[in-house]
Amino acid sequence: MKLAVLAGGVGGARLASGFYQTLAPQDLSVVVNTGDDFRHLGLHISPDLDTVTYTLAGLANRDTGWGLAGDSFEALAALERLGGPAWFRLGDRDLATHLQRTLLLSQGLRLTEVTKRVCAALGVKAAVLPMTDDPVATKVVTVEGVLDFQDYFVRRRCEPVVHEIRFDGVEAAAPSPEAADALRESDGIVIAPSNPFLSVEPILALRGVREALASKPVVAVSPIVGGQAIKGPAAKLLRELGHDVSPLGVAKRYAGVIRGLVIDREDEKLADATRALGLEVVVTQTIMRSDQDRASLARDCIELLRRLGA
Amino acid sequence: MKLAVLAGGVGGARLASGFYQTLAPQDLSVVVNTGDDFRHLGLHISPDLDTVTYTLAGLANRDTGWGLAGDSFEALAALERLGGPAWFRLGDRDLATHLQRTLLLSQGLRLTEVTKRVCAALGVKAAVLPMTDDPVATKVVTVEGVLDFQDYFVRRRCEPVVHEIRFDGVEAAAPSPEAADALRESDGIVIAPSNPFLSVEPILALRGVREALASKPVVAVSPIVGGQAIKGPAAKLLRELGHDVSPLGVAKRYAGVIRGLVIDREDEKLADATRALGLEVVVTQTIMRSDQDRASLARDCIELLRRLGA
Repeated sequence: MKLAVLAGGVGGARLASGFYQTLAPQDLSVVVNTGDDFRHLGLHISPDLDTVTYTLAGLANRDTGWGLAGDSFEALAALERLGGPAWFRLGDRDLATHLQRTLLLSQGLRLTEVTKRVCAALGVKAAVLPMTDDPVATKVVTVEGVLDFQDYFVRRRCEPVVHEIRFDGVEAAAPSPEAADALRESDGIVIAPSNPFLSVEPILALRGVREALASKPVVAVSPIVGGQAIKGPAAKLLRELGHDVSPLGVAKRYAGVIRGLVIDREDEKLADATRALGLEVVVTQTIMRSDQDRASLARDCIELLRRLGA
Repeated sequence: MKLAVLAGGVGGARLASGFYQTLAPQDLSVVVNTGDDFRHLGLHISPDLDTVTYTLAGLANRDTGWGLAGDSFEALAALERLGGPAWFRLGDRDLATHLQRTLLLSQGLRLTEVTKRVCAALGVKAAVLPMTDDPVATKVVTVEGVLDFQDYFVRRRCEPVVHEIRFDGVEAAAPSPEAADALRESDGIVIAPSNPFLSVEPILALRGVREALASKPVVAVSPIVGGQAIKGPAAKLLRELGHDVSPLGVAKRYAGVIRGLVIDREDEKLADATRALGLEVVVTQTIMRSDQDRASLARDCIELLRRLGA
């Protein structure tokens, strides 16, 4: 079975690594949000791409979810001593990825090509695909005004109440040819337990993506378990934007896109209500603490897709 | 006595630190070559400015002369694993200087202002002044073609035979206001034992610099000792460009600029011939192994300047 996974950062990376353990690498494409990409210190930083790449490479810091295991922070500490900005935590080895990416982009390579080279260097054999090679910038409209994504997410720690989320540039953006091919050629598509608003909807907002998904079995894994997000502001955003903070809220947000939903055992009582929305449902353990958890959840997703004809 | 020192990298930095030990910091300005500045990995790198700043801050790597003592190279090693360029040896903490410089320049600060901030952060109280805020790029015309300075110096290790050295942009470049003030307000000027062709002549080539020096006692310290350069390609360049590889060759190269020359005891036999060129001469130990050597040579320069009326 050829699979495409739509992923943001940490949750997406973890499930992607479950599929990476389960499928032949040539059968796995991970289409990754780039709405969080930004320039910082002159560097092109792609947080979600790096999280997915490092995780598949087995190099990710498993405690934080982002960054490289065992990385040092000498450059950042020195930058802080010089009065430079230290709010974005750049490890020394992580910095090399941003330097190399920025260099290759300046030489005219597409982000997709750059990512392919980084993956090759780090031994990642699945396709890690930026959702687009075009610039898309997630903006968070809050009570404090319109914030750049990283400003909201890192500096303001997701504290300001959100009214709306915009993806600047998305009207002019198209999926990369590689991402479009991956979606078209896949037998099924899995939306990872990433933030629906911040990580998945930028991908869905790209030209032609909803149409490409319409003809496929598509399932999602709920990022909400027991009324809370496993990580990040998904629960807070569901609440602030007027949705149920539950798998049902997630299901409704993905209405018209997904045909199945994977929910956690803790939410088993919501299984029937989810089925009542016309969705196939799998109830399983969705919190991924170990590699085994990741692979197990991946197999559950595949099982659900098979039920849907994939 | 207010002093201005014209300096390149390692030799200039060492003598500057001798003056820094000897003079009140407000009486010392170091006017530093920026012809070696270049962009690398999107970063604005100013090798000579950093060498002088790190040396005055007491942070320089004393073994290599460049870079920071005890710096790590995690980012560079990771960059190399990613297939990135590793020929320019960037330490992790050193990298922070380039990131911060590039950031501040992108915000519209002049290189002089950026350098002042870096010096303040590192506790350097003397004025470290880029020779100019305008772009000047040293190009080395060799048997292998025209090479960028760093390409010649680092990648090709000064091996290609040189026909000519150019300073691209110098016709349109002026000394920074701060460097022009430092030259005008100084009681005497010392040309450090830096490479005449690559480090000092870019400064002399700036508009008005030779004129500013004409009214001052100016002395140089010979970078050639016993027919060899203390460091770098000065001897090789003197030879390839048809000059004596001796303090005499240096004196002739600086004809019309200097009124005195400091030569090493090893070259004592050339003292009379140097005097015959109309120069005041001091014979002393010019090789700077210790802080004491640096301060001692600085005092010898001051003594020579006093003899010339400073």
